Amino acid sequence: MPTHQSAVSAQRAPHPINFGQKLSLIADHWQPRVVAEMNDYQFKLVRIAGDFVMHSHADTDETFIVLHGQLRIDFHDGHVLVNPGEMYVVPKGVEHKPYAAQEVQMLLIEPRGVVNTGDQGGERTAPNDVWI
Amino acid sequence: MPTHQSAVSAQRAPHPINFGQKLSLIADHWQPRVVAEMNDYQFKLVRIAGDFVMHSHADTDETFIVLHGQLRIDFHDGHVLVNPGEMYVVPKGVEHKPYAAQEVQMLLIEPRGVVNTGDQGGERTAPNDVWI
Repeated sequence: MPTHQSAVSAQRAPHPINFGQKLSLIADHWQPRVVAEMNDYQFKLVRIAGDFVMHSHADTDETFIVLHGQLRIDFHDGHVLVNPGEMYVVPKGVEHKPYAAQEVQMLLIEPRGVVNTGDQGGERTAPNDVWI
Repeated sequence: MPTHQSAVSAQRAPHPINFGQKLSLIADHWQPRVVAEMNDYQFKLVRIAGDFVMHSHADTDETFIVLHGQLRIDFHDGHVLVNPGEMYVVPKGVEHKPYAAQEVQMLLIEPRGVVNTGDQGGERTAPNDVWI
């Protein structure tokens, strides 16, 4: 596993994180990859396409920042469309389902340990805390 | 003060945050404006130009995501350059000084309550927790 700055107190990283370069290392959809940590929060890059499962995170809000493509987040009472240069925070406990008609590349921000399927689990659950 | 979603449990926002639209509401440099919250963390947009003061935040890491322009972060032992599409996390306790030869527009992420000058204080300290 790569070392990262938060594991070493007060050691600053030598270089910034470049989203495009990191995304070039990701081949699969729906497999979030950790690229940085801030305190006990993680920044994860992910490529998605198609539909996901409705789920929620009981203990935390979850932030989506879209870098490429148009993300649709479905809720029981509607949806939001999130384009590049936009962000959306799903409040804790709110059921949501990401959807991408065409590939979306995005940055997720959430506390360390949060899994992609939240309370739902199941076969779409990706390995957690995988760094690139 | 505007209401915001995190003040109302499990109320989701009707629309995403558009960085460009929010930045169009900011005229002054070095005046961070809060645009969203995730748990007890805030997302702040800021325009900067020129030099700042060397400072640190004893209790928290601080994240910089550059949207426009080239950010230079000076440290006592060197610097990093952060371009659009890149992010950098300054570890807690590490003295740093943002610098922008030309205007930089960026997103800051840090816990609610963190002030821009950290432990340094002084005249460059901006009002905190100002929403747009």
